[in-house]
Amino acid sequence: MITARSNPQLKYLATLLKKRSAREEDKVFVCEGRKMFFEILAQHPEALVRTYWSERGLSELSPEESEALAAIPYETVADDAFDAVAETVTPQGVMAVVSMPSYRTEEMLAREDAKLLVLESLRDPGNLGTILRTAEAAGMSGVILSADSVDAFNPKVVRSTMGAILRVPFVYTDDLAATLAELKANGVTLYAAHLQGSVPYTEPAYAGRCAVLIGNEANGLTDGITCLSDVRVRIPMEGAAESLNAAVAAAILMYRMKE
Amino acid sequence: MITARSNPQLKYLATLLKKRSAREEDKVFVCEGRKMFFEILAQHPEALVRTYWSERGLSELSPEESEALAAIPYETVADDAFDAVAETVTPQGVMAVVSMPSYRTEEMLAREDAKLLVLESLRDPGNLGTILRTAEAAGMSGVILSADSVDAFNPKVVRSTMGAILRVPFVYTDDLAATLAELKANGVTLYAAHLQGSVPYTEPAYAGRCAVLIGNEANGLTDGITCLSDVRVRIPMEGAAESLNAAVAAAILMYRMKE
Repeated sequence: MITARSNPQLKYLATLLKKRSAREEDKVFVCEGRKMFFEILAQHPEALVRTYWSERGLSELSPEESEALAAIPYETVADDAFDAVAETVTPQGVMAVVSMPSYRTEEMLAREDAKLLVLESLRDPGNLGTILRTAEAAGMSGVILSADSVDAFNPKVVRSTMGAILRVPFVYTDDLAATLAELKANGVTLYAAHLQGSVPYTEPAYAGRCAVLIGNEANGLTDGITCLSDVRVRIPMEGAAESLNAAVAAAILMYRMKE
Repeated sequence: MITARSNPQLKYLATLLKKRSAREEDKVFVCEGRKMFFEILAQHPEALVRTYWSERGLSELSPEESEALAAIPYETVADDAFDAVAETVTPQGVMAVVSMPSYRTEEMLAREDAKLLVLESLRDPGNLGTILRTAEAAGMSGVILSADSVDAFNPKVVRSTMGAILRVPFVYTDDLAATLAELKANGVTLYAAHLQGSVPYTEPAYAGRCAVLIGNEANGLTDGITCLSDVRVRIPMEGAAESLNAAVAAAILMYRMKE
């Protein structure tokens, strides 16, 4: 059992939770949710690199969970050492180092009616988590993010996706303009969500391959990206509201595409 | 100038930021946003009970802002004392004690096509803030909350409404069932957002007076409230998604009612 907070494995976990660069270097992230852990164990056990359970977490397992857990090696960690590392206010008793899933844009375009979401410079972890969760529910084929967007493997994002992080294909691109050109070459119509959009979002039929483009929380889409779009759609707003939350705008448009 | 952190006025501000009971007793809340402050000053100066500016905040005022501020009395607070009280990570230099706006359900029902949102036991401040912000943009006539929902004057809610807190009518009710009965007596059709809803949310026309009911983040609507509704609507979900974020579900339904 690991009891010392200074244990190198716990330090590595803490580094993975805090640093995007460390996650990217080793191509792993940390799963802190019980439900998500058992989902990975059942469906992608090969993705589990290392698993750590707190004593309390182990004592709270159901018989079914204990049986499932017996199939893999794991380390036990003293509660105080575990809690000192965990990111969450109420740790769920498990931290697992998990291999990052990896997707390609071409896979997202397989279907003739592929529906994509494109995010430019999205910064808020809660927003990205909510967007990925909604993207799964809305049946999106995939999500494309500019490289300066918040890391999807940030622990706050992972938690707020409610498991969708493992089920929705997503890719980061260093050159969003080039990726959009590639989408257009593949017959994808690009709809930019824009406050100055000329077309109400309810007007297009969103037939065939489509992508909705959502911009940064404070500034929206850049002009450079907006001008690459085919249609600028506007979500009408009443009152003195100046904009919608990015996750709300994305949800309204994804569900409109889905209809 | 106030320099001591132990100053009774600063202690009162800290109490108002932290405690719902203190806010409700004095019927005031704290505005910490510059933009919101100047909006209140321009449109509801009578609502400003007391105003506190940090030295840094004052030094950053534009000439127009300085001129507007000259019309009212305010206290100057030393930066370190101010920052010790402020709730935000990056204080904006102003904290104002503001009278709570007060609304009545009858006012929300004035229009023949009144559109309402009803929230049962909503708990997350960020969700409520986002919902009030979206409710304004979607042109809702008002929002009704069960008394056990998070306080709309919680500083996190106030911030995430982006000013909508002062522009969207909302009321708390101790007896949600009785309030729903009152709505029905006034010709309001009640649509409960429900995972087991039998009607896709895109089906109803949402004509005349309508209200959408959204439940608690973890548990949804209680059976008691659900059975008072006229229609149970379902937002279809794909993949393994079990539910949508409450603010996302509310946004999709409010915008559908608006169409």
